Amino acid sequence: MKSSPLSQLGRRITEPPIAWLMKRSLDHPQLISLAAGFTDNPSLPVEEARASLDEVLSSPQTGQPALQYGPSAGDGRLRRLTAERAQRQDQADGPQYATDRVLITHGSQQLLYLLCEALCDAGDIVLLEDPTYFVFLGIAQSRAIQCRGVRLAEDGIDLAQLEATLETLKRSGELPRVKMLYLVTYYQNPTGITTALEKKAGALALLKHYERAAGHPIYLLEDAAYRELRFAGADVHSALAVKGGKDRVIYTGTYSKPFATGVRVGYGLLPEPLYTVVLRIRGNHDFGTSNLLQQILAQAIDTGRYEKHLGVLQKRYAQKAAVMADAIGKNFPAGVEWRPPQGGLYVWARAPQSVRTGIKSRFFQKAMRQDVLYVPGELCYADDPRRAKPNHEMRLSFGGAKEADIQEGIARLGRVLREMRVK
Amino acid sequence: MKSSPLSQLGRRITEPPIAWLMKRSLDHPQLISLAAGFTDNPSLPVEEARASLDEVLSSPQTGQPALQYGPSAGDGRLRRLTAERAQRQDQADGPQYATDRVLITHGSQQLLYLLCEALCDAGDIVLLEDPTYFVFLGIAQSRAIQCRGVRLAEDGIDLAQLEATLETLKRSGELPRVKMLYLVTYYQNPTGITTALEKKAGALALLKHYERAAGHPIYLLEDAAYRELRFAGADVHSALAVKGGKDRVIYTGTYSKPFATGVRVGYGLLPEPLYTVVLRIRGNHDFGTSNLLQQILAQAIDTGRYEKHLGVLQKRYAQKAAVMADAIGKNFPAGVEWRPPQGGLYVWARAPQSVRTGIKSRFFQKAMRQDVLYVPGELCYADDPRRAKPNHEMRLSFGGAKEADIQEGIARLGRVLREMRVK
Repeated sequence: MKSSPLSQLGRRITEPPIAWLMKRSLDHPQLISLAAGFTDNPSLPVEEARASLDEVLSSPQTGQPALQYGPSAGDGRLRRLTAERAQRQDQADGPQYATDRVLITHGSQQLLYLLCEALCDAGDIVLLEDPTYFVFLGIAQSRAIQCRGVRLAEDGIDLAQLEATLETLKRSGELPRVKMLYLVTYYQNPTGITTALEKKAGALALLKHYERAAGHPIYLLEDAAYRELRFAGADVHSALAVKGGKDRVIYTGTYSKPFATGVRVGYGLLPEPLYTVVLRIRGNHDFGTSNLLQQILAQAIDTGRYEKHLGVLQKRYAQKAAVMADAIGKNFPAGVEWRPPQGGLYVWARAPQSVRTGIKSRFFQKAMRQDVLYVPGELCYADDPRRAKPNHEMRLSFGGAKEADIQEGIARLGRVLREMRVK
Repeated sequence: MKSSPLSQLGRRITEPPIAWLMKRSLDHPQLISLAAGFTDNPSLPVEEARASLDEVLSSPQTGQPALQYGPSAGDGRLRRLTAERAQRQDQADGPQYATDRVLITHGSQQLLYLLCEALCDAGDIVLLEDPTYFVFLGIAQSRAIQCRGVRLAEDGIDLAQLEATLETLKRSGELPRVKMLYLVTYYQNPTGITTALEKKAGALALLKHYERAAGHPIYLLEDAAYRELRFAGADVHSALAVKGGKDRVIYTGTYSKPFATGVRVGYGLLPEPLYTVVLRIRGNHDFGTSNLLQQILAQAIDTGRYEKHLGVLQKRYAQKAAVMADAIGKNFPAGVEWRPPQGGLYVWARAPQSVRTGIKSRFFQKAMRQDVLYVPGELCYADDPRRAKPNHEMRLSFGGAKEADIQEGIARLGRVLREMRVK
């Protein structure tokens, strides 16, 4: 055979670096993994899921329908509850919170993929945070979408750099290729940073300004996956609540992380005409999210079980975050920068620039020999021709590991840092 | 704004014609729908699902894991059970039935999409049955994949026409664009036809022969979605069992239709290197099929509940098919050709060529006024520049409708046929 039968996408796709980490961790059960973005096992809501399922399946009105196909956009009750929750969290009103803007998906990851399909051809450009969620980078790479990273400050992206990036793209004539700005706005994966409302408003205003030169709308895709995993500080309104946001903001969230990752249900609120386009593409992917899973969630939300479980979960993650913060405080040299998290699953630790943390680095190899795994920071940076990827950071997850393992894992990393003479 | 922010796919995607039929049916509850491919509601396995869920969630070994992320390729037990089932059904052996060739997906529809992504660029060619599954046609249209239809005989595709098609493509230099032959081999949607094993072997031999000129493998994608919904006749081995099939056959199946459509779990057996490529693309779509749904199914299969339910379901569909066949026999003029089904959910009825059945036809309009809905045959034909789409057929489903509605719906269609002076 002379050539490959694969499509361009099929030829472009590579093994995600994280898959290697995952596999490593499965093959070496003695490894302490601070790498996986898994959620806490002991707090999984087995009883809540059982009770909700039992109610759904024992009623003749809901038992059979839960096992049948449902509407492609999602179950009516769950869509309404989702719209109501978003509106309540934002303490705002408007058409952007209408039930008919809600699309239920097979995890919010599916929606990120669908949006890339609906908006981006190969060569199109997505603006995103530097660093950002590495799975999104995998989607972009596989679809030959170009990325431009925008620096992150403590309260979200650097608006001046966003503006400079847009201006450069305007001058080079590439602005028509810019389709969206992707932001993970709550307890960001990987940095834990939460974006201030003014930053969302500022970003939206900039996108609007450059739309004229782009010739088409540029969307703000707000990924709020970790919003409900807040255990300190106040909630921040979403970009949906910002003036000018109602036709430009795509808001995505998930019920999987706050409830159970084995119950794969995500959602989005999308403006028209994008909503209809995404729904149609989705109709080719599958026939909608499992009705049974949607019924479990709708029932858990309606009965208050979801909210109650969320309270338990927030306390649990607060505790695990405190254990990690305490261990870092005791074990990491002062030259490593980090902040105690206020939500989410991650601590982002920045070693001095001279200490490389990448998979091939001495540091990573030494950590592996100590049986401890983290996500090297460089994996969270997009390919961006304008800069080299920073290579001296780590994402440390307190989500899945046991408290004793968090303590031990951090202590081992501390030893490696001292061996590397970090002060 | 001068232009659209949408991708080419986003601009190409159209509302599937079937969505209009579905909506029509939801908006007019008095309508008798023989259009929807829904499964039978009263036989949905509520008790079986409850018992399996209860067992999974009440055990400490399985309760929490069922609510956590699982491997991207699928749950180990379900993959093993799936490989074993396929092997047992085919009474065959070989590497093509290995557990590590099994990929569990969010319904088998997801796998059809992933395969199109992995193999086909815009302009590439898929060979398929004439007529075929209309959702597959929607995927092809949205991704600008070209289709070439191959006539169906009573025992599957016309091998002579398949050969002629391949030969023409070879002469025009288009053979390198041909990536696969898509066949729905059991109780085909829409015709109900089952492909004979010799036809599968013949098709595979032809594809192999033309591979040399194509310069790369050409896959046989065997969609066995309806295989387990058999109520008459013998099972036929899959193409996996055919000599030469082990590296060229992609076999897809589903647990949704035989068990519960609300439990969206499909699967495929794929040869390498395609398996790895598809798995990686899938890792960008989502983080695997809901673990909870996979546990329900693995438990139902392991305990024999699945098999027992299948027996009940087969009797149920046999009964509904008999009701439809009986009603057609009594109500349709002799000029309408059809065959009593041996499995699946559909009867394919062929009116004389002069009677158009399309959505804009007088016949369809008259049927609508009689409150009865069917799928016009033309929707099941690919866009193929070599022929006009036949427009005188109907897909009649006995899956979702009640027995009385099947009788009444067929009687009404019979009246319309007589009004149209069909003899």
